[in-house]
Amino acid sequence: MTLPRIVIERCQYLAWCSEEPDAITRPFASESMQCAHERVAEWMREAGMTVRWDNVGNLHGRYAGVAGSDATLLLGSHLDSVRDAGKYDGPLGVVVAIAAVQRLRDAGRHLPFAIEVLAFADEEGLRFGSTYLGSRAVAGTFDFADLDRLDADGVTMRDAITGFGGDPDRIADDRWSGGRLLGYCEVHIEQGPVLESRNLPVGVVSAIAGQARFRITFTGEAAHAGTTPMDQRRDALAAAAIFVQAVESYAGSQEGLVATVGQLEVTPGAANVIPGHVALSLDVRHADDSERLPASRTLLDIAAQIAKHRKIGHTTTLVSENGTVPCSRRLVSSLSQAVRDLGHPVVELASGAGHDAVAMSTLTEVGMLFVRCKGGVSHNPAESVTTEDVAVAIDVLSQFLELVAKE
Amino acid sequence: MTLPRIVIERCQYLAWCSEEPDAITRPFASESMQCAHERVAEWMREAGMTVRWDNVGNLHGRYAGVAGSDATLLLGSHLDSVRDAGKYDGPLGVVVAIAAVQRLRDAGRHLPFAIEVLAFADEEGLRFGSTYLGSRAVAGTFDFADLDRLDADGVTMRDAITGFGGDPDRIADDRWSGGRLLGYCEVHIEQGPVLESRNLPVGVVSAIAGQARFRITFTGEAAHAGTTPMDQRRDALAAAAIFVQAVESYAGSQEGLVATVGQLEVTPGAANVIPGHVALSLDVRHADDSERLPASRTLLDIAAQIAKHRKIGHTTTLVSENGTVPCSRRLVSSLSQAVRDLGHPVVELASGAGHDAVAMSTLTEVGMLFVRCKGGVSHNPAESVTTEDVAVAIDVLSQFLELVAKE
Repeated sequence: MTLPRIVIERCQYLAWCSEEPDAITRPFASESMQCAHERVAEWMREAGMTVRWDNVGNLHGRYAGVAGSDATLLLGSHLDSVRDAGKYDGPLGVVVAIAAVQRLRDAGRHLPFAIEVLAFADEEGLRFGSTYLGSRAVAGTFDFADLDRLDADGVTMRDAITGFGGDPDRIADDRWSGGRLLGYCEVHIEQGPVLESRNLPVGVVSAIAGQARFRITFTGEAAHAGTTPMDQRRDALAAAAIFVQAVESYAGSQEGLVATVGQLEVTPGAANVIPGHVALSLDVRHADDSERLPASRTLLDIAAQIAKHRKIGHTTTLVSENGTVPCSRRLVSSLSQAVRDLGHPVVELASGAGHDAVAMSTLTEVGMLFVRCKGGVSHNPAESVTTEDVAVAIDVLSQFLELVAKE
Repeated sequence: MTLPRIVIERCQYLAWCSEEPDAITRPFASESMQCAHERVAEWMREAGMTVRWDNVGNLHGRYAGVAGSDATLLLGSHLDSVRDAGKYDGPLGVVVAIAAVQRLRDAGRHLPFAIEVLAFADEEGLRFGSTYLGSRAVAGTFDFADLDRLDADGVTMRDAITGFGGDPDRIADDRWSGGRLLGYCEVHIEQGPVLESRNLPVGVVSAIAGQARFRITFTGEAAHAGTTPMDQRRDALAAAAIFVQAVESYAGSQEGLVATVGQLEVTPGAANVIPGHVALSLDVRHADDSERLPASRTLLDIAAQIAKHRKIGHTTTLVSENGTVPCSRRLVSSLSQAVRDLGHPVVELASGAGHDAVAMSTLTEVGMLFVRCKGGVSHNPAESVTTEDVAVAIDVLSQFLELVAKE
């Protein structure tokens, strides 16, 4: 069986490690995660790696460099999933990394640096609502207050970690202490439609987009839908509708900007009552904070203008904000060269979603390679990648290792 | 104390007849309704009426006509309320009617017809979700299948009626059988802002507007808000937002039309997911069905066009439809003349809300007099009318009785 086919089969195998019989749901520190770890550890050993678990529950596979080498390149992604997930978001990056190491092992080669494949224990945050647990432990930014978080069954994170074989009091020891790092490189499905629409198997991530999330309310006056003439209404939903349209229209006019109203709640929400109050979410992302910040301001200004024009109340609240994490130009350059060396056009694209690379960026330089996924679909059983694209991803990652070795 | 002041005090008194200590909530066949009935029956007797209860639970007060008269004019409204109601929606019509009869009694006069004041037992449908129970019993259109309906405590309507002293098996006997009817006239707060905006104490209802209620869905594609470029989205909420705006804009351009989107639910409804599905309500009303029907078709066409243009799915379902109930030109004319005789400008307006007059229209000619209410507010503790406007309403109703007597 070819390596790309093996990668696909391994992702399918991991799909059986689930808390649910007919769906993929693999939370942090669960039996299903234990199932995944057993197989991934086996595959790591087959690829010539020494395997260890850290305290938070990450699985590490280390492939030694040539004698006397003192540096390490980190590869990896996560093994946990959302509820009713697809097969590839996370696992693909782990098994592609193992495949690239397998290829070195099969050739009897070692590079002038060690390769450590990290299979992170929790990126999605399904069980405890706290993302990047695994990579934050390695990056040394684990928040110990999270240990008191409870899962849906009332189990603390502390007990979950202990039950999984870790020592929650020693998570500080998980911080990288293995010497000089050459960076962290993550292979991941795109989770978007750009590569598919450009007919490209892979793309090089330029940055992980910064994101602001706002809560915006419009407050008019609830009134009887039958007895209030159109010209005497202060309809909060009519105002919100103009805003939703303006968000779509403005973001569509700005290169690289995405803005989304994903939540919208109407009060009182009766068919025969004019909406008095609407609360909605606004999510704004751009790979360049210097574009994102004024765009957010423009959108909030539009909300204010709509409210003023319609003589209704409005509020805006910043719910969360993360600055852009740029990928290392050095790693972007090597990944791009690897894509080019394999005869594919190079496209750089921003990641609109967060990844373990965000947490790892505080420890070392980060780079990411996106793999085309069918329909841009993720967080869904319909996630799909082709064996051909996986072949390209393995080849690009292998070539990337060669290029880093020549630095 | 003057009659208008007495009317206001009586509405305040009835507000104490409630299932809740700090709010007005007076459901069908409840202890609070019993409380209201005791007092209203007393006021009816004071006004010279003979009082009886029918099987469904309506209270009837009859003021005899001159000897030999064989006709009856019906007056009235309802005594039940919504949850956390105001003081006037319903009770005002009952106590104003009693006041008009009291004035005849005080003058020692009888008219060439009997006056029967009907205090209907259930118009709002709070307890069993079935409206016009009281007036449908009198009109002979009571639906006996409703007797099996359950309230929130699992009590059947049948048991509730029995417990209130009625005989559910004899509700057919509640149908009017008292001889020739001259019509039914109901005084009610406007529940809208038209009279206030025109600075008028009362208005004559021309018709009770027909109403159609639709459920409309738009189905696009849920996708990641961060990774899906604006030009590759099929955002169901963006489509719905255009529709909401179109509804407001179109209805605003058509004289007498009101159209409202009061409910709108977004799926999946997460801040970081592009909405894949939106379901919304559309309520369309006009006093002229020949205007309402094409207006509804136009709005549904707009929804279809938006969906087609955006290449997303959509469905429309008719949830309910009631044709317009025109008020009797004879009663409108007499009410208008009465308003004019008292020196007020006459305005005819359509009722956007339903009333007992809708059910009574299958039995006899109906007319309604609206009383200005503060801010157009109803179904709310803030319902408010002035003593001055109540004085006009009593005077108009008294003069209306004189005009009917001259027919």
